[in-house]
Amino acid sequence: MGSSKKPSIVFIGAGNIATNLAISFFNAGCSIAQIYSRSINSAQNLAISVNAIAINNLSELNKEVDFYFICVPDKAILTVADEVRKDIKGIIVHSSGSTETNVLSKFNSFGIFYPFQTFSKSRIVSLKEVPICLSGNNEKTFKSLYDLALLIGNKVIELDPETRAWLHLSGVMANNFTNHLLALSYQLARDKGFNFDLLKPLVLETVQKAFEGDPAKTQTGPAIRDDHTTINTQIEKLKEYSPQLADLYKALTLSIQELAKSNK
Amino acid sequence: MGSSKKPSIVFIGAGNIATNLAISFFNAGCSIAQIYSRSINSAQNLAISVNAIAINNLSELNKEVDFYFICVPDKAILTVADEVRKDIKGIIVHSSGSTETNVLSKFNSFGIFYPFQTFSKSRIVSLKEVPICLSGNNEKTFKSLYDLALLIGNKVIELDPETRAWLHLSGVMANNFTNHLLALSYQLARDKGFNFDLLKPLVLETVQKAFEGDPAKTQTGPAIRDDHTTINTQIEKLKEYSPQLADLYKALTLSIQELAKSNK
Repeated sequence: MGSSKKPSIVFIGAGNIATNLAISFFNAGCSIAQIYSRSINSAQNLAISVNAIAINNLSELNKEVDFYFICVPDKAILTVADEVRKDIKGIIVHSSGSTETNVLSKFNSFGIFYPFQTFSKSRIVSLKEVPICLSGNNEKTFKSLYDLALLIGNKVIELDPETRAWLHLSGVMANNFTNHLLALSYQLARDKGFNFDLLKPLVLETVQKAFEGDPAKTQTGPAIRDDHTTINTQIEKLKEYSPQLADLYKALTLSIQELAKSNK
Repeated sequence: MGSSKKPSIVFIGAGNIATNLAISFFNAGCSIAQIYSRSINSAQNLAISVNAIAINNLSELNKEVDFYFICVPDKAILTVADEVRKDIKGIIVHSSGSTETNVLSKFNSFGIFYPFQTFSKSRIVSLKEVPICLSGNNEKTFKSLYDLALLIGNKVIELDPETRAWLHLSGVMANNFTNHLLALSYQLARDKGFNFDLLKPLVLETVQKAFEGDPAKTQTGPAIRDDHTTINTQIEKLKEYSPQLADLYKALTLSIQELAKSNK
């Protein structure tokens, strides 16, 4: 590709990640050649936003573009990669935090393009501050991916597969599990008649504070105080409301106390 | 108290909550008469910031102020209340989310002043947007507490003891447990060689999104996808790293799947 020409990209997948990446690259001046989805409607919904052609058959894939992004559910990556002709010219990547690179090893140039963020189709987020974690099958591939990533983000890093797997796992804890705790709180608020929004300043403050140092050092609450009276009262209340939630409360209380012990 | 005169306040306790409340009231023009702490050094540290007198003996308590704030650990509230003379003129409150009001019932005017936020001495937060949850032993007491709270906050609500207990419990889940998940992620980042700050955009986005609706509806990750391959891979990795963390991962994964089932 010429140095003055913005790259061309095909997206295989039209879900949350594909939507956010395609729109970011389109806004950065890239040409989005095609959007593939098994459902032509899904492909069209995204294609129309980024001036691309919608396809639902991988045999129609344009062989001449610079980058191919596989943005499908993890378990579908291998199947999709199998269907893509190995003589494509460009670099092919997937955007999964937990899938090995070798699922793409039949291609000449391949790698990982893993933006470490949670995405929704309905909420397009800026990638400027989002860590974009890359790896490439050789230095040339990596350099091309690096230049590409800089078009949409400021925080581009190289990550070996092992570290990427741990980063992904920490994301499950800090993102998926945190979201679940908030979902449980939402349900509690609804069932017990208070406004879930009351929790917003508290949660935002907790999260802001957590990134100022080791969050273990600013842990508060009955578990870290070893406040049996409050812990037992709350477990009893929860048992009536939801025995499963009471068990989760116990497990997290124990985990807080164990981490405190191991940090001593 | 006269309508033009700002109220006078005594703080019993000089910890995180007392520090944040005393400084907020002081900045709002209130007179902070005394700061009590068992440790005269702690009392002096706070007293000097709010132009107050430090005491470490409750018999020295000024009987003529408008409000007495008991801001000591939950288990010490009863002991402290026992030591305060019942013929004080003003209204006495505690700031605990999980302590009954009746520990103060020997006084003429008493109530709860519960700011729903997490506090550190070293990080003074604005109370403007923080829900301040009140109750009073009668309407006159409540009205006085309401006017007082409006000096520092915009979100003042009355809360019955039962709802306050559930709100406090939801705070333990959404604040204390979330902070713990971040603490575990911090430890993982340190042990596995990536920067904990990589998680910041992800966690901030998750939390922002959570308050736009029911967080259960935007749950992502291997648990909600029922992605056994990723779940099992991650459990195996965690087992080697920390069997306790693997158990917690399993418990939270199960809880996500149970909530999804119950919401169907």
